[in-house]
Amino acid sequence: MAHDEFAIIEEYFTGIGDSADDVLLAVGDDAAVVEVAPEHQLVVSMDTLVGGVHFPIDTNPADIAYKSLAVNLSDLAAMAASPAWFLLSLTLPRNDPQWLREFAGGLRQTADDFKLPLIGGDTCRGELSITVQIAGVVPTGQYVTRQHAKPGDLILVSGELGNAGLGLAFKQGLVDLPQDLQTRCLKALDRPQPRLELIPFLREFASAAIDISDGLQGDLAHVLKASQCGARISRDSIPVNPWIAQQQAYQYALGAGDDYEICCCLPARYQREIENWNLEHPACRLTVIGEIIESGIFLREGESLIELGDAQGYQHFG
Amino acid sequence: MAHDEFAIIEEYFTGIGDSADDVLLAVGDDAAVVEVAPEHQLVVSMDTLVGGVHFPIDTNPADIAYKSLAVNLSDLAAMAASPAWFLLSLTLPRNDPQWLREFAGGLRQTADDFKLPLIGGDTCRGELSITVQIAGVVPTGQYVTRQHAKPGDLILVSGELGNAGLGLAFKQGLVDLPQDLQTRCLKALDRPQPRLELIPFLREFASAAIDISDGLQGDLAHVLKASQCGARISRDSIPVNPWIAQQQAYQYALGAGDDYEICCCLPARYQREIENWNLEHPACRLTVIGEIIESGIFLREGESLIELGDAQGYQHFG
Repeated sequence: MAHDEFAIIEEYFTGIGDSADDVLLAVGDDAAVVEVAPEHQLVVSMDTLVGGVHFPIDTNPADIAYKSLAVNLSDLAAMAASPAWFLLSLTLPRNDPQWLREFAGGLRQTADDFKLPLIGGDTCRGELSITVQIAGVVPTGQYVTRQHAKPGDLILVSGELGNAGLGLAFKQGLVDLPQDLQTRCLKALDRPQPRLELIPFLREFASAAIDISDGLQGDLAHVLKASQCGARISRDSIPVNPWIAQQQAYQYALGAGDDYEICCCLPARYQREIENWNLEHPACRLTVIGEIIESGIFLREGESLIELGDAQGYQHFG
Repeated sequence: MAHDEFAIIEEYFTGIGDSADDVLLAVGDDAAVVEVAPEHQLVVSMDTLVGGVHFPIDTNPADIAYKSLAVNLSDLAAMAASPAWFLLSLTLPRNDPQWLREFAGGLRQTADDFKLPLIGGDTCRGELSITVQIAGVVPTGQYVTRQHAKPGDLILVSGELGNAGLGLAFKQGLVDLPQDLQTRCLKALDRPQPRLELIPFLREFASAAIDISDGLQGDLAHVLKASQCGARISRDSIPVNPWIAQQQAYQYALGAGDDYEICCCLPARYQREIENWNLEHPACRLTVIGEIIESGIFLREGESLIELGDAQGYQHFG
């Protein structure tokens, strides 16, 4: 759909996101040209969302657009990189102007909100699928990986875990929820907030970080594997909504994905910095849920301590 | 397929392409970290190939891997940027170990040949689709766009045009070809050579360039539109194989895509530099096919001059 392709890009996808000084050439040539400021490094990530796999086909196109950017922004937040620009590859079963208008509108709104220019990409014909490649920048050496958690470090998570998973269960008719919790959980599912506000904090204090896209258990295990250490976490410390706490439905917090909160580790000496953070950022509260140990992965549930696996053993999880 | 995904990446996609000094963190974290050398700019592009649309589903997986890199490398060549690294998003209908082995083998071979490290990406479940995001680097300001062709500039193309389109027609049983031409055309279709050798020449002399992925007519029209000028080209000057010339089947050269040769414009004073280039690079010969004019698009065929459209009128083409 060569000519279709250009028409679609011209009609829907030019001028999305604030134009930025570091973008010299955006949509409309064989490639885009950008600059990276001196003494900075570039952090790049790419995620694909497939219709019918990552979201129901009939999801609101603006929500799909939002989420395709949010999951990538969340990866940048976990690396402590400030968003810079993105590329989009959009595969569509047919040229559906209404769908495209809604998708492009949602993308434009989201890109504007996050000051993230769309600088290039591709459109093609096929099963509905959205690939976003995002880039962020970080002062040289200040990026945060999964690799440097150390025994004694505190393990923290931002926000509340399990809301997105619970929202999905509610949507599927598997659980009933009070009205206010419905809203909170559906918002967590459809409009996850990438935790960009944490970037300066992570740069300054974190030894390791990851965003929780596959569930706390699996994602913490990635950190432990990369850092070659273990963890002891307390189930009752995990920040959850009152319904999960009351129903003891911690599986939503431990195993369900899509929360896009940040799990990070930092030396215990930063206790006061955590308290200060929480005073100043009540909407992005950090909660200590455990600590890094030499090896093994242990979950305290009330009086009992359950061994979940070992340092290399995330495959034993869940 | 969260856990599948990690297993696939670990088994097939780590350590692909030469490790490079500018890559600080590759596959295996939330994102990759790279550096751009001082006084250089980054050139980025992304292309998706969809099974059944851009290639038949039963195409040799190593050829698919090759082509998914080659088309992106060709975009970099057209911008005069040297390849630096790439990200891959691979969507597969199922975990097919043999297909994955062959695809990853082809990708590794190609990435090694082009010294292009794979630094991250994604795998997911869905209709077969391959998205490659590629980055190259260029000394500040030396990138070449579609925008600066000027009246009086020569229009040149590299190599021979129409071979890929003719290869496809042969594969589809639409034409019969002599044996040696079969080989040449199928190679052009399955293993197009990105014209990376032209990068220093383009940086030094070209006013505009594009890679020919949609056919000479359409792609030249993009240059003319971006540069706000016109062109006069001579059909008999277009470099084609003897079969196309004999059969007067110039539609393959003008309208069929997938050649991935470079079409570039340069001031006529560089005639000698073109001759020198051709003496030194017989395998990547540049042929003058016409010149840039103020407006209008004209094709000379023998004694007749056909007006194909105007400067803004590429939609009248074909």
